[in-house]
Amino acid sequence: MTNQIEQRLSALGFKLPAPAAAVANYIPFVIQDNIVIISGQLPVQDHEVVYKGKVGIDLTIEQGQDAARLCGLNIITQLKAACNGDLSRVQKCLRLGGFVNCSSDFTNQPKVINGVSDLIVEIFGTDIGRHARAAVGVNSLPLGAAVEIEAMFRIE
Amino acid sequence: MTNQIEQRLSALGFKLPAPAAAVANYIPFVIQDNIVIISGQLPVQDHEVVYKGKVGIDLTIEQGQDAARLCGLNIITQLKAACNGDLSRVQKCLRLGGFVNCSSDFTNQPKVINGVSDLIVEIFGTDIGRHARAAVGVNSLPLGAAVEIEAMFRIE
Amino acid sequence: MTNQIEQRLSALGFKLPAPAAAVANYIPFVIQDNIVIISGQLPVQDHEVVYKGKVGIDLTIEQGQDAARLCGLNIITQLKAACNGDLSRVQKCLRLGGFVNCSSDFTNQPKVINGVSDLIVEIFGTDIGRHARAAVGVNSLPLGAAVEIEAMFRIE
Repeated sequence: MTNQIEQRLSALGFKLPAPAAAVANYIPFVIQDNIVIISGQLPVQDHEVVYKGKVGIDLTIEQGQDAARLCGLNIITQLKAACNGDLSRVQKCLRLGGFVNCSSDFTNQPKVINGVSDLIVEIFGTDIGRHARAAVGVNSLPLGAAVEIEAMFRIE
Repeated sequence: MTNQIEQRLSALGFKLPAPAAAVANYIPFVIQDNIVIISGQLPVQDHEVVYKGKVGIDLTIEQGQDAARLCGLNIITQLKAACNGDLSRVQKCLRLGGFVNCSSDFTNQPKVINGVSDLIVEIFGTDIGRHARAAVGVNSLPLGAAVEIEAMFRIE
Repeated sequence: MTNQIEQRLSALGFKLPAPAAAVANYIPFVIQDNIVIISGQLPVQDHEVVYKGKVGIDLTIEQGQDAARLCGLNIITQLKAACNGDLSRVQKCLRLGGFVNCSSDFTNQPKVINGVSDLIVEIFGTDIGRHARAAVGVNSLPLGAAVEIEAMFRIE
């Protein structure tokens, strides 16, 4: 049962990562009424963090954007699970919280986080995809990841 | 149509900044039921970040508070737009998330974020204005801003 | 009136800290419908921050976990107040936001934040206790605290 959202993912050349296993006493997402709260996602593929290091030192802005996009694909993977596999149930991206692992003089966090914001709009369209967001820099992230993104969606 | 909230803003000498234009695929706020989720706001006036640098190095605590207050005025500007111009529709400030760009030995984030907490209570009164909040330090923020604040309000 | 949750706290040897007094124009929690939003809690006991410094420099991972657990006990204290003293009204831990004060090369934030995640599941059980979460590193926290945790719960 492939729907329009999945078709758009494929057409754009994106492949959803395998869902990360629950690693502890927290879970990848919680559903409250029709709101899905998704845990902070790292730029993980095949169960490994692909983008490590600090943007502005070890990674360029473009690499940071790639990292943010991969976080976004992991978000969509979790969201799909929350929708029992049917991404056409997604009604609105409400909020993204973006953390960029970076040097103390790096000031382009918005450009980095655009990697995920643009992905979400590309996949879900403007009406559903555009969201509120916070983008900040931090001095370190889990497993040395370059970016971490948490999210909140409304589904039907 | 000037209401009590707007009168209080004027009486205290505050002037709301012009609403920041949408700069990317995210938007300044999202409304879900009667909850307004407001994107992280910077200390911007006339489309420029006025307070740049790190509190504890480049800025004093007082300047950090001024930065937080200006973030708060930008929050109120967005909130006003979310209320179609009528701030008397604001029922409760639910949460503020405050990020202070600071040195690694700075520990007065609460005092800095009081700049926005006090503003919100001054403008909306104690019952509506008092809120849950998180205040943390970070090593860098977008465009070099000294403070970034995101917010969640209930409106009618 | 001691209920099952309180009994489990006692049986595990935990004692809830005294609720922190409201220190400013923000408050320890806000209730919106049946959602409790709890302000960022520090590792405070008897009104003092017990765990100060940076994990990876001044504190070991284990000490960081202890700090996270103490933040969690403060969260439960606030949650109890939100439930008018009856913790059996807690239906779900929806989200924890964890900030670890750490060195720039520290990458074990998840292990540190497990200190609070494990506590919540231990006390409330798997169904109620497991939650979405974000865990990030930061270069400084209020009063020099090693960890800060904010939370969101559903209550009946």
